[in-house]
Amino acid sequence: MTDFELVFLGTSSAVPTEHRGLSSIAVVRSGEILLFDAGEGTQRRFAEAGLGFNKKMKIFITHMHGDHCVGLLGLLQTMSMLNRSNPLSVYGPPGLLSFVRGNIRMLKFGLTFHLEVNTVKADGVVVEEKDYLVSACRGEHHITDYAYVLDEKERPGVFHPERARRLGVPEGELWSKLQHGEPIKLNGEKVYPSEVLGPSRPGRKIAISGDTRPTVKLRRCIKGANVAVLDSTYFDDHADKAREHLHMTAREAAEMASEAGVKLLVLTHFSSRYEDVAPYVYQAVEVHPNVVAASDQMVLEVPYPDEGLPRVKPAK
Amino acid sequence: MTDFELVFLGTSSAVPTEHRGLSSIAVVRSGEILLFDAGEGTQRRFAEAGLGFNKKMKIFITHMHGDHCVGLLGLLQTMSMLNRSNPLSVYGPPGLLSFVRGNIRMLKFGLTFHLEVNTVKADGVVVEEKDYLVSACRGEHHITDYAYVLDEKERPGVFHPERARRLGVPEGELWSKLQHGEPIKLNGEKVYPSEVLGPSRPGRKIAISGDTRPTVKLRRCIKGANVAVLDSTYFDDHADKAREHLHMTAREAAEMASEAGVKLLVLTHFSSRYEDVAPYVYQAVEVHPNVVAASDQMVLEVPYPDEGLPRVKPAK
Repeated sequence: MTDFELVFLGTSSAVPTEHRGLSSIAVVRSGEILLFDAGEGTQRRFAEAGLGFNKKMKIFITHMHGDHCVGLLGLLQTMSMLNRSNPLSVYGPPGLLSFVRGNIRMLKFGLTFHLEVNTVKADGVVVEEKDYLVSACRGEHHITDYAYVLDEKERPGVFHPERARRLGVPEGELWSKLQHGEPIKLNGEKVYPSEVLGPSRPGRKIAISGDTRPTVKLRRCIKGANVAVLDSTYFDDHADKAREHLHMTAREAAEMASEAGVKLLVLTHFSSRYEDVAPYVYQAVEVHPNVVAASDQMVLEVPYPDEGLPRVKPAK
Repeated sequence: MTDFELVFLGTSSAVPTEHRGLSSIAVVRSGEILLFDAGEGTQRRFAEAGLGFNKKMKIFITHMHGDHCVGLLGLLQTMSMLNRSNPLSVYGPPGLLSFVRGNIRMLKFGLTFHLEVNTVKADGVVVEEKDYLVSACRGEHHITDYAYVLDEKERPGVFHPERARRLGVPEGELWSKLQHGEPIKLNGEKVYPSEVLGPSRPGRKIAISGDTRPTVKLRRCIKGANVAVLDSTYFDDHADKAREHLHMTAREAAEMASEAGVKLLVLTHFSSRYEDVAPYVYQAVEVHPNVVAASDQMVLEVPYPDEGLPRVKPAK
């Protein structure tokens, strides 16, 4: 069990195919859903995956091409049909606000919840929560396109009960405070977490590229990620098309992931021209040792770095 | 074999379910596709049904609620991705033009074909072609909502070869002209089709209601239809909801179809609250003898009136 999963809701580029819908990835973490892109059909995959339309949630749009954002309309409408009450924040490039507001007006659907649309105007931190950050990093595409990076903050180190006992801290509430990194008072003296905890432990980092060419900046943004989900539209033999249409081949994605020290590379955004996605993986593993090709409804568990590599959850 | 089929691409109301997508019906007639509504997911069902993205085609939108028109965006975009070259005309209520043009601008997709968006401003004939008419008929809903009626023009009567021979008309091109209702010249004398043909035969008529309450006007519009596909959102026990949300129960749809002399009633636009649609049919057949519940990818063949009732094509 992990409290951090990626659910791939749509993995085709541009045009849906028999088995692949348009771009969308749900990150389910500590009871919250962070949705990255919402191509047409997202609401259906979202329901199939049992994600729940009234959960705590944020949505991030990489760029304003229809195959990455049109599904937002049906998703918002269905949330309202199901009487969502929790507020929802959506983040994305310029154009998102007028797209959302314009369509809500034109299609006259009343929202049952507070919707906040935030325009991401530049690289940097987009969301800061108590225990994680989401940052945007501009890629290279025909229109403004952001990669998003989710960074968990450091967790307090491992708790050593023998040290707490030695200091005379009684088991219970005071232990719990120290375990969560809070100092306590004991007989008029302060006890600091560092006295009973090991060194703080790194959180998890995942990156989702949107549609882009490989760039030096992007490589820097995804550095050291536990998982990077990268645009991998083409096979090697269409490397010219990747350059022309500003996407990546699987090999280019693998090169960038390898140079950035990414632990697991997930390939997605597959061209509908290929029936079999196996060559994406063959071509990428020549460059990076750990590669998975995404498929619709694939679930990837992301453990903490010291608990091993992210792994695909067996299908039900 | 008939050259007139209805393909049900989406049969759920408001929210898609596991097996039902949002509203869309393709009428395939003499090589042309007439698409009625395009809810989210239509392009996918359209491709699955093998309908072809570059066919001669017209699209009719009943009303500007998202679950009936959002799929238009992905459909137009995919047509362009596949390099559609044939022009396309779309017809619908006020608001359609700004929805289509606004989104094409906001999502920046270049069309590869000529797109004509026509606003239907009042009841009456919307399209007149050589051999058929499509008319709009306003229903009763929260916003402007048109039912559409497709009326084939009368066909020339049955050809009697013995009459043609008696008049000395040689077999071949001249017979063909007479069969198609054109007068010919023979030895300086005119020969009229009526001299060699039986009485002209009625064409087929189908009606698609959109979202609406039953009304006297609508009953008049669908009069004598071979097939009427009617909004049938609720069971009897939610008749109050049908009135409140301006839809029909299956029974109300059957009453209107019965009074209008409709040959076959097809129920659709099913509420996602019910798992089993059988009660729709049980309740409707108490009022109308010929009732079918639509399902996604169901194909209905529509023969000429003298060739029997429309029939569901066995699934492949």
